[in-house]
Amino acid sequence: MRTIITISREFGSGGREIGRKLADKLGIDFYDKELLEIASKESGITQELFVKHDETYTNSFLYSLVMGSYPVTAEGRINPELPLNQKIFLAQFDTIRSLAEKGPCVIVGRCADYVLKNHDHVVNFFITANMAHKRRRILERYDIEKNKVEDFIRKTDKRRSNYYNYYTDMKWGDARNYDLCINSSTTGIDGAVEIMEAFVRLADGAD
Amino acid sequence: MRTIITISREFGSGGREIGRKLADKLGIDFYDKELLEIASKESGITQELFVKHDETYTNSFLYSLVMGSYPVTAEGRINPELPLNQKIFLAQFDTIRSLAEKGPCVIVGRCADYVLKNHDHVVNFFITANMAHKRRRILERYDIEKNKVEDFIRKTDKRRSNYYNYYTDMKWGDARNYDLCINSSTTGIDGAVEIMEAFVRLADGAD
Repeated sequence: MRTIITISREFGSGGREIGRKLADKLGIDFYDKELLEIASKESGITQELFVKHDETYTNSFLYSLVMGSYPVTAEGRINPELPLNQKIFLAQFDTIRSLAEKGPCVIVGRCADYVLKNHDHVVNFFITANMAHKRRRILERYDIEKNKVEDFIRKTDKRRSNYYNYYTDMKWGDARNYDLCINSSTTGIDGAVEIMEAFVRLADGAD
Repeated sequence: MRTIITISREFGSGGREIGRKLADKLGIDFYDKELLEIASKESGITQELFVKHDETYTNSFLYSLVMGSYPVTAEGRINPELPLNQKIFLAQFDTIRSLAEKGPCVIVGRCADYVLKNHDHVVNFFITANMAHKRRRILERYDIEKNKVEDFIRKTDKRRSNYYNYYTDMKWGDARNYDLCINSSTTGIDGAVEIMEAFVRLADGAD
């Protein structure tokens, strides 16, 4: 196995659980929120700030215009004058690249598919689910009122999609960006893992 | 097997070949352009007109406004005053529904996923491929100059996408509309068929 796996996912689709099970089956490392801790250690920015800005895009276009700041200094370091959310994005960017250099693993969210676009042996997944399943899953895991759950799901996905579309030149959820998109409502969690494992083994051999 | 399979596909992704091989493996009927002949026989509109308007949307909004015409008459027949492209769409719509009533089959393109949205036991696929593979495939099959092939691919997909987005309330190629989207460049044609067969057998048992 030499394949790096990225998983983008709708909120409530079970993407995290699917990713962890897939990593276990393949015997490789798994990174979801774990990535924030590593990026914090590597960058020296506190973990709280990574959590606060996680997959969230704050419009700092005017700020960038005023500052005229460049993402990376002449010495190749992250420019300290950059807005915080962009510094955080770039620190995650570096962490994702260094994890991929270490060997096969599963990385959930955080534009990893975009960051590793020119990396060999990457398989990009997108996980969807029907609203009824997403509702049930979120109600089981979050303390939230029944009549607010759909709104919560929509807003979380809107946030993820804004973040992705801002930092990449691609569109979150467009089938043409991924190697395989799967609706976990059709297969169940374990069925999705099964199909994805077959897909990875095929791609890993076929490259 | 009780599953109806619809396949939407990028031009040059091998969707037709994949669909035919999948139908053969599952021992069920296959409809791509075959659908136009059946719809012509059932509707009494000539096959040439079906071919001319195949997956092509012509803006007849102003015409519809002027005519104030309704798609179906009080007797449940297609309104003869409708613009031709809408009559053709509705005739295909009827044919797709009657094919699905007959039993398991594979239907390629023509908004079949939308038409069968409320049908039980339907699996919707979308097939993509990388531009390099699509170029090669189209150059092998069409008499076209090398420097025109990408434009031809983009225009054909634009036409399919306009058609789909006009007649449905969904977006062509958005992962959230399909059960499985697969990039045939990652798997090859036979690899895609293999993954899709596993997916259908899983969905067929899990429903």
